Amino acid sequence: MAKEQFTVGIIGLGLIGGSAALRLRATGFASRLLGHDSNPQHAARALELGLVDSLATTEEMARASDIVIIAVPVNAAPKVLQQVMAAVSETALVVDFGSTKQRLCALANGLPNRSQYVACHPIAGTEYTGPEAAFSTLYAGKVNIICDREHSSAQALGRALQLTAALGMRPRYMDSRDHDRHIAYVSHLSHVSSFMLGQTVLEVEPDEKNIFDMAGSGFASTVRLAKSSPAMWAPIFTENAANLLAVLDRYIANLHNFKELIAAGDEQALYELMKKINVIRKVLDRETTDETIKTDKPETIKQA
Amino acid sequence: MAKEQFTVGIIGLGLIGGSAALRLRATGFASRLLGHDSNPQHAARALELGLVDSLATTEEMARASDIVIIAVPVNAAPKVLQQVMAAVSETALVVDFGSTKQRLCALANGLPNRSQYVACHPIAGTEYTGPEAAFSTLYAGKVNIICDREHSSAQALGRALQLTAALGMRPRYMDSRDHDRHIAYVSHLSHVSSFMLGQTVLEVEPDEKNIFDMAGSGFASTVRLAKSSPAMWAPIFTENAANLLAVLDRYIANLHNFKELIAAGDEQALYELMKKINVIRKVLDRETTDETIKTDKPETIKQA
Repeated sequence: MAKEQFTVGIIGLGLIGGSAALRLRATGFASRLLGHDSNPQHAARALELGLVDSLATTEEMARASDIVIIAVPVNAAPKVLQQVMAAVSETALVVDFGSTKQRLCALANGLPNRSQYVACHPIAGTEYTGPEAAFSTLYAGKVNIICDREHSSAQALGRALQLTAALGMRPRYMDSRDHDRHIAYVSHLSHVSSFMLGQTVLEVEPDEKNIFDMAGSGFASTVRLAKSSPAMWAPIFTENAANLLAVLDRYIANLHNFKELIAAGDEQALYELMKKINVIRKVLDRETTDETIKTDKPETIKQA
Repeated sequence: MAKEQFTVGIIGLGLIGGSAALRLRATGFASRLLGHDSNPQHAARALELGLVDSLATTEEMARASDIVIIAVPVNAAPKVLQQVMAAVSETALVVDFGSTKQRLCALANGLPNRSQYVACHPIAGTEYTGPEAAFSTLYAGKVNIICDREHSSAQALGRALQLTAALGMRPRYMDSRDHDRHIAYVSHLSHVSSFMLGQTVLEVEPDEKNIFDMAGSGFASTVRLAKSSPAMWAPIFTENAANLLAVLDRYIANLHNFKELIAAGDEQALYELMKKINVIRKVLDRETTDETIKTDKPETIKQA
């Protein structure tokens, strides 16, 4: 049986879009890769690195591609999605890979060809940015969260699942509103805590040598996300403000409480609280259960 | 030239003591390893795993060893140090590997044989604990902070530097008071922020599957330290309370400020602040400079 191959257009040729390009070429899923980036240096570099075969405007790409992947910062996504949906061919699939979904899905519902669009959030990333940061295994073994699937056609959803599999991911379905809440808890809060840790240590420890020499004590891993791209994260934080502010309040309240226990010298209470939090070990080291796999199987998809 | 070999006694056979044992045996630095652990199961397991050759009481070990390494939680260290210093042979070296130094050094100054003691803090660790967590390369390439060296004899310091080299570390000298301040900033604050992140996410996200599926988004690395041992960390936090509380206040203040910027939707200010914090990238990726190496060279040691 001949393998199905697609012309894939990618808008945004940084870590996210570039890594998808590398993998889709490597697996043969893409027979041709078109690229676009609003930053001309990034676009030129992506072409030079061979991430894509040629550059195109958003409209050209929308007309010529079987699949369009939008991989731009969340504040740029609405305009790009509007342009793409207005120009896309009748059979093409459009996906976006952004970290917030509720507002974009609401916008999509008012656009032409809505059923050809599938809202995705691949749970993958590193603290590096730009075309040079791209690598083909970024998505391997990760989860692709597909939101509001009832608004996508069976054909579009089927192709989105092919794309998900080609990138090495397993799909999971979620309401876009729930997605934004859960991702604020598990991802966005982590980024804020890490950026603030970086800020605090830079303020109190002006001697970089001390930071460097002592970073092996756990600091390096907790502050890793503070290396992340401000251009990507500032819009995510403001877009998901409602969910993020609520969980930030709770984080600050927990810090206050822990501070009080330290100030009181209450070693026993500190011990017991940390012992409870240690359960996170079990959660993170959990195996993918059979149930998970069953729930995520394409055949369980109910069409609206 | 025949290689110098030592009888090494290790008190506390967990990650820290056990990893030292494995490395000192592998390099031939230790010809014989004696061990002690207040937890009989840990002691038996360490013997079974071959971390040490035989078990001994603290006093037996102090009398029989050329080098005694104290690797116990910081709240147990004062009593152990007193016992060891009272029984140690005239030529032996005593070191401790604890994460706080000021109080222990102050205590040591009043003990017999003070000049045979060298206060150390190897900047190395993982989130795992107990004899099974030990591995021989834990210390490779890390920094060993040696505190208040002016209170140690040239002989003791020389042997401590041999030990540091055998473990694969480079030495760095620091006043014990400065050590506790810097380590609160760079290490202890990271642990608090990580534990509180774990607590917050466990509270707001009762569905473990969501945490598991989304942990790849940065959460796994920022929460890693929340797997750490409460028995080790509760005493560290209370012992170093003064330094830790001050920097925790600043961390909380920074979080408040960031929250306000998100609430105000001030994307530009968020962007600029995160851009400044990105400098942490340069600090963490910094090379060891020639100056660093020169400063740390044994020959620069001034004896009191």
